[in-house]
Amino acid sequence: MPAAPAARRLGRGLRGALAGALPARPRLPQGRWAAAAEGRAAPFSTLTLQDLPTAVLDCEYAVRGAVSRRAEELGAELGKLAAGERGPDEEGLLFDQIVPCNIGNPQAVGQQPLEFHRQVLACLTDPTLADREDLYPADVRERARRYLNGITGGAVGAYSHSQGHAVFRRDVAAFLAQRDGVDTSFEDVFLTDGASAAVKMVLSLLIRGGEDGVLLPIPQYPLYSASLSLLGGQSVGYFLDEDAGWGVSVPELERAVSEFRAEGGVPRAIVLINPGNPTGQVLSREVLEQVLAFAEREKLVVIADEVYQDNIHAEDKEFISCRKVAHDIGCTVEVFSLHSASKGLTGECGLRSGMVHCENVSRDVMDQLYKLASVNLCSNVLGQALMASVVTPPPPGGPSRERFEKEKSETREALKRKAKMVTDRLNAMEGITCQAIEGAMYAFPKVVIKGYVMKKAISFATPADQIYCVEMLERTGVITVPGSGFGQRPGYFHFRMTILPDEATLEKVLDAIERFHGEHPGGWFK
Amino acid sequence: MPAAPAARRLGRGLRGALAGALPARPRLPQGRWAAAAEGRAAPFSTLTLQDLPTAVLDCEYAVRGAVSRRAEELGAELGKLAAGERGPDEEGLLFDQIVPCNIGNPQAVGQQPLEFHRQVLACLTDPTLADREDLYPADVRERARRYLNGITGGAVGAYSHSQGHAVFRRDVAAFLAQRDGVDTSFEDVFLTDGASAAVKMVLSLLIRGGEDGVLLPIPQYPLYSASLSLLGGQSVGYFLDEDAGWGVSVPELERAVSEFRAEGGVPRAIVLINPGNPTGQVLSREVLEQVLAFAEREKLVVIADEVYQDNIHAEDKEFISCRKVAHDIGCTVEVFSLHSASKGLTGECGLRSGMVHCENVSRDVMDQLYKLASVNLCSNVLGQALMASVVTPPPPGGPSRERFEKEKSETREALKRKAKMVTDRLNAMEGITCQAIEGAMYAFPKVVIKGYVMKKAISFATPADQIYCVEMLERTGVITVPGSGFGQRPGYFHFRMTILPDEATLEKVLDAIERFHGEHPGGWFK
Repeated sequence: MPAAPAARRLGRGLRGALAGALPARPRLPQGRWAAAAEGRAAPFSTLTLQDLPTAVLDCEYAVRGAVSRRAEELGAELGKLAAGERGPDEEGLLFDQIVPCNIGNPQAVGQQPLEFHRQVLACLTDPTLADREDLYPADVRERARRYLNGITGGAVGAYSHSQGHAVFRRDVAAFLAQRDGVDTSFEDVFLTDGASAAVKMVLSLLIRGGEDGVLLPIPQYPLYSASLSLLGGQSVGYFLDEDAGWGVSVPELERAVSEFRAEGGVPRAIVLINPGNPTGQVLSREVLEQVLAFAEREKLVVIADEVYQDNIHAEDKEFISCRKVAHDIGCTVEVFSLHSASKGLTGECGLRSGMVHCENVSRDVMDQLYKLASVNLCSNVLGQALMASVVTPPPPGGPSRERFEKEKSETREALKRKAKMVTDRLNAMEGITCQAIEGAMYAFPKVVIKGYVMKKAISFATPADQIYCVEMLERTGVITVPGSGFGQRPGYFHFRMTILPDEATLEKVLDAIERFHGEHPGGWFK
Repeated sequence: MPAAPAARRLGRGLRGALAGALPARPRLPQGRWAAAAEGRAAPFSTLTLQDLPTAVLDCEYAVRGAVSRRAEELGAELGKLAAGERGPDEEGLLFDQIVPCNIGNPQAVGQQPLEFHRQVLACLTDPTLADREDLYPADVRERARRYLNGITGGAVGAYSHSQGHAVFRRDVAAFLAQRDGVDTSFEDVFLTDGASAAVKMVLSLLIRGGEDGVLLPIPQYPLYSASLSLLGGQSVGYFLDEDAGWGVSVPELERAVSEFRAEGGVPRAIVLINPGNPTGQVLSREVLEQVLAFAEREKLVVIADEVYQDNIHAEDKEFISCRKVAHDIGCTVEVFSLHSASKGLTGECGLRSGMVHCENVSRDVMDQLYKLASVNLCSNVLGQALMASVVTPPPPGGPSRERFEKEKSETREALKRKAKMVTDRLNAMEGITCQAIEGAMYAFPKVVIKGYVMKKAISFATPADQIYCVEMLERTGVITVPGSGFGQRPGYFHFRMTILPDEATLEKVLDAIERFHGEHPGGWFK
């Protein structure tokens, strides 16, 4: 088995380059690998790294990249330490807890699920529970029965319509109609295994070849660039203006499009992430109007990633959907709007529950989208039910409503406090600047990196913020994501951290970051 | 809005061609469509059928194709009839019930879920249920607690490891080790949103460009050809020998590979579906050995689609996994083995629970597969739990075991009887020949088509078995899938029907098919 080609991997950026800096994951040799480990030559190589598609090799996904992998290893070490299985010659660990601030995964850091939805799902899973008056409140059982009656035979274990069961899509359409003040047909809704699956489905409608590109904000959520890479299309970055609170400006959009066209590219769509991930800004009606007018001028489809629409922390901001604005100004550009049960105040990431609404999309194209959905048969039916339930609160005055409101408001208020606390404390650290976290679940501070970290970055040909985040992890146990994984202006460095841990833990996380960052330009970091 | 280009659509085959023969789905005009409906010109067309990627347009997925769509329309008509909403001038329907025999979707036609697994899932959804001794048996609660303890914070609503939670993968690995008598690492298992997602992930590792191809049985399950089309790769058919019970022969594999190579193609993998879908044959150890030796000679990865491994109906046949045979003969070719909770005796299609095990796959390539999985974050956690539970029966002697065995054996025995009944009755019809249904869930009879149907097929440039299946649906309410959707030798016609409806319904279905087929060469069919 030939060694991995180091030069090629280094050339490929973060992942490959850092792989050299970190110990390989231990794995048991087996099959051909057992042969190689024993010094026997493998008889042939059907599937080697060299044979894989460039699109796969080039795809980067920093949210689960090198820092996250190093955290897995450290977690295993911590486990061995706790079990007394660590040898005396092994290096000590500098922390006693790993805090995952890398992924917007609320329940992994203690957020409790909303009880109402979980009780409804339990009834769908075991329909006998919907009949037990002693177990669940009447509004839970009523909701569950309505959903079960809407599914042939009440069978959540049967494949649904490829867009999702109509009973769930009707609830979603009613929510969208009410939210936007616009008539909404359930036939324009696709329920998907998380919003990620919806993104991939829509992008695969758009990319015909290597000349096609999609405008992405920089910084962006890397699902977009990763999916475009896999589809063989291009990511066309438009920079958000950090100093203007990560604002979107039309001249910058025009620069991005005209440069891309000048290189022979064909722009197909623009992605708007509102509220921003990782940047936390909430877009105003005026900005949305300008972007829609731009999209119409340039004949671009709009992908409106609005999965954080229920996470607004700034008192003077409100969420307005791109689709509502399109409707209000009579814009006929196609708008694909994403929503999810993974974020908001629900945080049910693991249940893979998402959706896309299609506005102004022609029937022919909808038919093709349906065909794409049908190749995977359907999304998971409990996730479909959850999406419907999340946008349909328990009825006012019913037995569940008060507790439901209390659970939501506690989470909402805590997030508001945490958004402010994280911003304030980060801004109080020398060399760190953090824009206001108006919405979503992340801080994305700019950080000045010098000394040891910068030297190491240069010698490993690795982005300095990746080294910074690995060092932070190894010294504090706090997992963050390097800004380079989201994209940033050359010469600037950031990291993304969630604001999701409970307030006491978050204080400790910020203490640890402050200590780490304070030591970084001086002391042993020099 | 320009009309759809009829010539191009006809040229594209089944879907396009049949679209002309069937009334369009009614949809409310809106946005740009409202404008078009009112005779106003749409201002521009960002996303028209003409602009879509060829890969998307060319992708065919017959299981949810034209027949299935026509069934949706007829279902709506039936609903209107029941509600008294059908006008006196509308044509009457020739049946009073639609029976879906098109999709292997057991719970849609009345199969009950296995209670044990559903109770475990209910406890994961609402963990307070795991503490209620009055509700569920001790072995259910114990299983649920073990799973909850294996997940950080017991939170099924949190994203898991991108391969799936280790606690679930360990159960799957233990099952595979026991089934195959081969040590199995949980690190080689990926839990996925149904086996379909696993297929797409593995294929996307293989296809680098238009010259790459994958050997597929003809007839095949069209997920493979559809996914290859979307990835821009080629389907390379090898014919199964119908008269030899849909046998796989190495000379035919060699013909397929050498012809493909002669055209400049690069074969990358071979798909084996065992038990066969749609063909129902069970492959012997000898055949598997021959195919593995062929794959090794030709440097092909093996994709072993074994989702029907628990559906063996023939008394003299047993399921042997491809991976076990590879291990036994020391074959070092990569084997990706698929399994699912959707089929077998569980039939939980709607919960999207599948897996792939990777044998002999190098670490570098595993890392890339992990990266692909991580772009989608993770599969749905309840589906992961179900996959683990399905391969881990409740403990012998425990309170759930007896009922569990009874439920499974009733389904198993009924399927055996139905496999025999469907084969016998189809073979008794003149012009229909059906091979023994040794395994899986389908009959795939060969049918002689003449007269009216053949004339209509020629005038609509549509495969005759598609017209046959649409006519059967319109006259009997029975939904089947045309053989052309799976591939077949030129000049022969088939249809696929499931054997899943209960025995009384299945008798009626066969009566209806017999009547329909008997009328077809004579009477009004002339």
